[in-house]
Amino acid sequence: MTKQQLFEQITQKNSYLCVGLDTDIKKIPSHLLKEKDPIFEFNRQIIDATAQFAVAYKPNIAFYEALGAKGWESLQKTIEYIPEECFTIADAKRGDIGNTSSLYARTFFDKSSSGLDFDSVTVAPYMGSDSVIPFLEFEGKWVILLALTSNDGGDDFQQLLVNSEESEIKNLYQQVILTSQKWADSERMMYVVGATKADKLLKIREIAPEHFLLVPGIGAQGGSLEEVSKYGMNKQCGLLVNSSRAIIYASSGDDFAKVAAQEAQLVQEEMAKYLQMYL
Amino acid sequence: MTKQQLFEQITQKNSYLCVGLDTDIKKIPSHLLKEKDPIFEFNRQIIDATAQFAVAYKPNIAFYEALGAKGWESLQKTIEYIPEECFTIADAKRGDIGNTSSLYARTFFDKSSSGLDFDSVTVAPYMGSDSVIPFLEFEGKWVILLALTSNDGGDDFQQLLVNSEESEIKNLYQQVILTSQKWADSERMMYVVGATKADKLLKIREIAPEHFLLVPGIGAQGGSLEEVSKYGMNKQCGLLVNSSRAIIYASSGDDFAKVAAQEAQLVQEEMAKYLQMYL
Repeated sequence: MTKQQLFEQITQKNSYLCVGLDTDIKKIPSHLLKEKDPIFEFNRQIIDATAQFAVAYKPNIAFYEALGAKGWESLQKTIEYIPEECFTIADAKRGDIGNTSSLYARTFFDKSSSGLDFDSVTVAPYMGSDSVIPFLEFEGKWVILLALTSNDGGDDFQQLLVNSEESEIKNLYQQVILTSQKWADSERMMYVVGATKADKLLKIREIAPEHFLLVPGIGAQGGSLEEVSKYGMNKQCGLLVNSSRAIIYASSGDDFAKVAAQEAQLVQEEMAKYLQMYL
Repeated sequence: MTKQQLFEQITQKNSYLCVGLDTDIKKIPSHLLKEKDPIFEFNRQIIDATAQFAVAYKPNIAFYEALGAKGWESLQKTIEYIPEECFTIADAKRGDIGNTSSLYARTFFDKSSSGLDFDSVTVAPYMGSDSVIPFLEFEGKWVILLALTSNDGGDDFQQLLVNSEESEIKNLYQQVILTSQKWADSERMMYVVGATKADKLLKIREIAPEHFLLVPGIGAQGGSLEEVSKYGMNKQCGLLVNSSRAIIYASSGDDFAKVAAQEAQLVQEEMAKYLQMYL
């Protein structure tokens, strides 16, 4: 999917919502456990219920591989089921030396090898250029590079001040954004940005004005979505805001899909407002 | 497996060789392709041929997941087949926020969930403490944290000079080693160190004298194994030196297992010499 196609979908649906499919066998409604593939059945119903409000889906790969071969089968069925127009993200945080990253790219992008055909994959930057570039060799596919994450440990290394060749002192996450722009432009690369604070978003938009940012961890409501939208949005929206648990586990009863749709719609309506205000 | 048990195996076998199972369906001898599970059949014969010369096996997870669910089945059979006394490494380079890392830990350590039961997993440090600690919650299991890698892109970020709280300026990889020692000691954590040069190994041994180092990318012969052994060895050996392609693909004919054994033995004999010289 091209950046332009993604933007068109955003304007059509008036939404930049990404639904995170962090599907945990221990958390899905119990009546699904009698199904042959409960994980896929849960995802199928969530996708049916939310596809009109969401522009992207992001299966968190850990949840599938924790179930071994069976989990990979559920993942394969899920990715096949997601409507063509939706952008798909393998949230896998992969990254290794060149020939190994090539195989990870094959895993998520080459259907003839693994059965999977995602639009994008999240990649960890620590091993540098040749750990990322193999993912870019698949035409039309995207790398979403970890830049700034909002978890407790995110500050351990990402906020360290680094002295780069260009002499100006920056935080490591800023250096990651700057260096990686040599590998691909905003048509092929996005950044994971856990920032919900204005100052960080402004800093990132200074050095990556055109890129899409994947923002995880926003709940169904609240000021943080407004803050992200106000300070993070660019002329092509430039935001995919993810919500996982607040949508998919909004109800644990038989009505889980209906309630998920309601939650997704609430977020979409808020997003429609911000698109009008800040685009 | 405890550090002491690993050391005992090293002294018994006179070896600190780790055989990397980077098993590629495109590279294995063609006569194996008629087998029901060619990947497992290749691994089985390699393991039988090399187990007396190797103390560890390291399946590179990318090679298995690139084949989807089928690949995970081959991986499961392989890990079950590796002799009990050998240390097993899931070379997966995982790392994510806390609840997701918990699921990755379950993937590689909890046989009842995924079918896999590795002794250790390689983890990427970029997301910090809570991306690593969940792996340590499995008793008796190890984290092998990426520190310094020798790939082309390794220098992009790992060599950056950082200003940490403790004021002294260090390279990022040194900071990773220092910070991560707050999370676990040398009984539970090892480091991936691609260094083959004396100066880097000496720097690392200054700040991590007791830890095991997993050193990838050493060929069957040559000065580099000597350099690693001379400058990297500590009182409990403290080294696992990996060789993948130079052993498993030493022959592409029917005799692949026999030739792999010969190559593994050559490395083992060189290691026996260094154990006598430097331990």
